[in-house]
Amino acid sequence: MRDVAVIGVGCTPFGEKWETSFRHLFIEAGALALDDAQVAGEQIDAMYVGNMSAGRFVEQEHIGALIADYAGLASHHIPSTRVEAACSSGGLAFRQAVIAVASGMEDIVVAAGVEKMTDVATGASVDTLAGAADREWEGFVGATFPGLYAMLATDYMHRYPLTREQLAQVAVKNHYNGARNPIAQFQQEITIDTVLKSSLVADPLRLFDCSPITDGAAAVILAPLERAREFTDTPVRVLASAQASDTITLHDRRDISTLDATVAAGRKAFSIAGLTPKDINLVEVHDCFTIAEICAIEDLGFCKKGEAGKLTEDGVTSLHGSIPVNTSGGLKACGHPVGATGIKQVYEVVQQLRGEAGKRQVSGAKIGMTHNVGGTGATVAVHILGV
Amino acid sequence: MRDVAVIGVGCTPFGEKWETSFRHLFIEAGALALDDAQVAGEQIDAMYVGNMSAGRFVEQEHIGALIADYAGLASHHIPSTRVEAACSSGGLAFRQAVIAVASGMEDIVVAAGVEKMTDVATGASVDTLAGAADREWEGFVGATFPGLYAMLATDYMHRYPLTREQLAQVAVKNHYNGARNPIAQFQQEITIDTVLKSSLVADPLRLFDCSPITDGAAAVILAPLERAREFTDTPVRVLASAQASDTITLHDRRDISTLDATVAAGRKAFSIAGLTPKDINLVEVHDCFTIAEICAIEDLGFCKKGEAGKLTEDGVTSLHGSIPVNTSGGLKACGHPVGATGIKQVYEVVQQLRGEAGKRQVSGAKIGMTHNVGGTGATVAVHILGV
Repeated sequence: MRDVAVIGVGCTPFGEKWETSFRHLFIEAGALALDDAQVAGEQIDAMYVGNMSAGRFVEQEHIGALIADYAGLASHHIPSTRVEAACSSGGLAFRQAVIAVASGMEDIVVAAGVEKMTDVATGASVDTLAGAADREWEGFVGATFPGLYAMLATDYMHRYPLTREQLAQVAVKNHYNGARNPIAQFQQEITIDTVLKSSLVADPLRLFDCSPITDGAAAVILAPLERAREFTDTPVRVLASAQASDTITLHDRRDISTLDATVAAGRKAFSIAGLTPKDINLVEVHDCFTIAEICAIEDLGFCKKGEAGKLTEDGVTSLHGSIPVNTSGGLKACGHPVGATGIKQVYEVVQQLRGEAGKRQVSGAKIGMTHNVGGTGATVAVHILGV
Repeated sequence: MRDVAVIGVGCTPFGEKWETSFRHLFIEAGALALDDAQVAGEQIDAMYVGNMSAGRFVEQEHIGALIADYAGLASHHIPSTRVEAACSSGGLAFRQAVIAVASGMEDIVVAAGVEKMTDVATGASVDTLAGAADREWEGFVGATFPGLYAMLATDYMHRYPLTREQLAQVAVKNHYNGARNPIAQFQQEITIDTVLKSSLVADPLRLFDCSPITDGAAAVILAPLERAREFTDTPVRVLASAQASDTITLHDRRDISTLDATVAAGRKAFSIAGLTPKDINLVEVHDCFTIAEICAIEDLGFCKKGEAGKLTEDGVTSLHGSIPVNTSGGLKACGHPVGATGIKQVYEVVQQLRGEAGKRQVSGAKIGMTHNVGGTGATVAVHILGV
């Protein structure tokens, strides 16, 4: 298989984009990525688009073709494929694009993610998101995603040392980073008090433990490494792509506080890249809820089980700590347009590795990781990127 | 890239499966395919699942993980990815599986398709299917799929010689074949009169010009050609995989009676395989409506534009003609569980090439083709298989 590089990235500002349609969100991100890579649309060989539920959010399926058409590429008849894996749709779209280039089948491939979540009422969007869990054994009996992650948090806090304040610190850190990221939905720093005094959503999770409902799109452009310098002076290599699955229901897991799919995908990615957690300079993890970041840090091997709360409290995962986590602001502060999140994670890591992350730059970053989760961990995609 | 072979196939009977759930449909097909390939679940390295709209049909997304879980593979944490391209979702799932094996990334890969369409009322399913067209410029202004294909038929019949009887003959032929296919939804032969006297749906298309609403699933198992004989004495090679896109709306096309994406994908497939239409012994085309089969035969190059009606009338496309089209009964008689159709086409061709097609066997068939269309032609997947 060929080595693959990211040659361009683009991302819309994330937020409640009342004025922008699903299809135009994508075009905005795609145009930014093409511009960044100095690639013309006609040079694109194929596209992969991650999207969770345009069917229910905007009553539109057939997303790959729609996007290729609105990108002005219909007359080129390029293959354009939608990939869906709930909140990890973006991560899987990136992975399919990597495979397409690595295989030798395609050269210049766009991997994108998009979700327009605010065109339906909040109740409808919560129910749509419940489609990422098991509809028959979770959704129909009333489990929402805050409820499922609250059960995970309750189990975790019963078994491991994690204080309510440490959990809140995840959100405080991510808002700090988001306040330094122009595309973040939330640009305000918060305090532990902000989190602890926010309304209870599903005990122990409060409003500021939860990622918001968001519209947004992100796109990256891949090329064979051997061709990357035709387009950019700063190609970023894809060092590993790994994907793992697990039971769709939380209650069927061996251990509900450990995401075995994260463990499996993480180990596989490190093995492919020949690296260990110590080699990673920054990691974007899937903090759909604060507890999810705690689990991710542990399950990826950055510390032992039960230690991530203390690690967070001690600032180890902060922008200037030894392993910065979610320098973008994560899902918590950037927002979480579900299909776009996995691509936005790659967008952040590429900016960091190029030294273009501005006020949130991790100095000397050479290797970064992304970790994108579908549902409560039934799908996980992990990628390692390096310069 | 490595050569790829199909080592096993399975398909549920297609029909209105009130007694079977979405997830159990898939498992039925998957188990048949595993059994056919003599492969154990633990040997599977990855899965790709084509599905158009489980989000709206059964309120379930995250289909890849759900399916891997219900297949009993959660503890193996295999990558499992849903692919969506409306009615060509199955064809694209097959293609992604081919790419995964060809790349060297995975060895034993399941490509499957599934749709459960009868859990919602007919009106809701018609609206869900309209999500395969452009929701903003077609669906919202009232265009349904019968309406869109009726416009295509009207344009075609205005420009080319095609009689109402020739169009009906497509349905008569496909019901004849379906009556010889155990998995077909409709097992009855019909006459031209049946079609002409059936109720008008969208002029000139009548009820018997339309494929029905169907539940069903199909699965095939792929392996590198070099390993295929570990599993089967009758591997079927994938000689070409091609995919093309076009404008999502019918009205934006250069020519609404010619599916340019079919032309592009067909040409590419023939070019990859080093073959011409004369080399094809049978072809499964996407006859969601009778007019779609007429266009497909022409756009794939089996005859010139305007000749397919006469060809059909003359029996050239019948089971014992020189280019048998839709020996399975096609979408018309097998039924059209949208996500499953592209895989069922492969299932049919593999049966034919192995000489296992029973009463519908094309004698001496060595090379077959599948043609799977999303929407009115915004996505097309073409595959060539051979022994």
